[in-house]
Amino acid sequence: MNDYLIKYILHLADNALILGHRNSEWCGHGPVLEQDIAITNISLDLIGQARNFYQYAAQLKADGSTEDTFAYLRSEKEFKNCLLVEQPNGDWGQTILRQFLFSAYQFYLYEELQNSKDDQLAAIAEKSLKEVTYHLRWSSEWVIRLGDGTDESNRRMINAIDDLWKYTDELLIAADYETKATDVGIAVNLKIIKPKWQAKIKAVFAKATLRMPENISIQSGGKEGKHSEHLEKILADIQMLQRTCPGCEW
Amino acid sequence: MNDYLIKYILHLADNALILGHRNSEWCGHGPVLEQDIAITNISLDLIGQARNFYQYAAQLKADGSTEDTFAYLRSEKEFKNCLLVEQPNGDWGQTILRQFLFSAYQFYLYEELQNSKDDQLAAIAEKSLKEVTYHLRWSSEWVIRLGDGTDESNRRMINAIDDLWKYTDELLIAADYETKATDVGIAVNLKIIKPKWQAKIKAVFAKATLRMPENISIQSGGKEGKHSEHLEKILADIQMLQRTCPGCEW
Repeated sequence: MNDYLIKYILHLADNALILGHRNSEWCGHGPVLEQDIAITNISLDLIGQARNFYQYAAQLKADGSTEDTFAYLRSEKEFKNCLLVEQPNGDWGQTILRQFLFSAYQFYLYEELQNSKDDQLAAIAEKSLKEVTYHLRWSSEWVIRLGDGTDESNRRMINAIDDLWKYTDELLIAADYETKATDVGIAVNLKIIKPKWQAKIKAVFAKATLRMPENISIQSGGKEGKHSEHLEKILADIQMLQRTCPGCEW
Repeated sequence: MNDYLIKYILHLADNALILGHRNSEWCGHGPVLEQDIAITNISLDLIGQARNFYQYAAQLKADGSTEDTFAYLRSEKEFKNCLLVEQPNGDWGQTILRQFLFSAYQFYLYEELQNSKDDQLAAIAEKSLKEVTYHLRWSSEWVIRLGDGTDESNRRMINAIDDLWKYTDELLIAADYETKATDVGIAVNLKIIKPKWQAKIKAVFAKATLRMPENISIQSGGKEGKHSEHLEKILADIQMLQRTCPGCEW
């Protein structure tokens, strides 16, 4: 099977798994019960999406790989998630902003992916889009609430933008395997979704009295396996049980 | 409002919150993606049930209490959960057994609570029973799979029973406030559900080739606020953000 297609599917899966795991760190630690449940539900949606993509990649690869070997037994360099999703939770504002920036990307991505020539990917995108629509609405409302809230919450959102904006370009710049998969009508052409993503961010930021930064340095490499030190810790955490506990195979 | 009624409702809520929190510690750390999602879904169901009970207790208490002040601002001695739910996760077998023992109790409890003279409690019980039906089926299947599995998994289940059985009596012995609330037709008479619970455990254990222990010392006190050292750590973890982070009030 085409190597670039599997890489593309793993890229989609890894984005969802890693952000799902990051969000799940709030599980039982949210600021209020209601939001604790909301962010954990988003985690579960994302991990569910990751499973669908991993299962499909396993089917294509047909070498004994499974969703669990992809999630638990690959090394850091094999993970193809964007740097944005592996960034630390920080405070609630940073978690919200990360979710909003990513959900807006994922929304337009899945919207297009529904038209993929690959029926299986189109079906996963269609199914996931309902969930992502909710994630985007929820995180947009929070960005507005915090940005246009108190001085303190506004200041925290500005800090979060300072911390995270440099990771947003990577979302919309195609990796090699993405370009190849786009050329054959399977992957989404990121040039189509870039203006939609920018318009969405701008509109929500305007309501939140926040500004989109300009001339900020770009951080990228995650899609090709060059990750920040954060991913190593996340994987150590995710993979600990599977790698060390023979009980998993009871 | 009647003090014993509020205590009874908090007891129901605390059981669900603490077990929900314990299970959520698996979130992102389950042995396989599918089970990680399953146990986290059970957490969310339980925390959702806790919220319903806390909201009702807050309404009755009418002193400015909210679901969040009940969850985040009470001390250990005010928590009325059974000792069983605060016990550590241990290995997967211990988590499964704790869930099974508790879900069987909760299933018969809610089944009866649907007939409570308190309409609100009856409604919460009816709504929650669908969730608990699934928890009981899921955990029963796992007890059978592990008990009647490999030598290793069977040995681990026997160890889990050794560790947890002493906390099961407390589930079925009424606290003072429970007796009072039962006498007025609001709370469930535990004598009615005890034989059902025992029969269920016996049936599932038989399929799992496991035995119910006899003559084991009883540990109790949780319902009256006398907890093991574990609850202190759980509350430190749950309440940390709310108690220390002024950002929660952004």
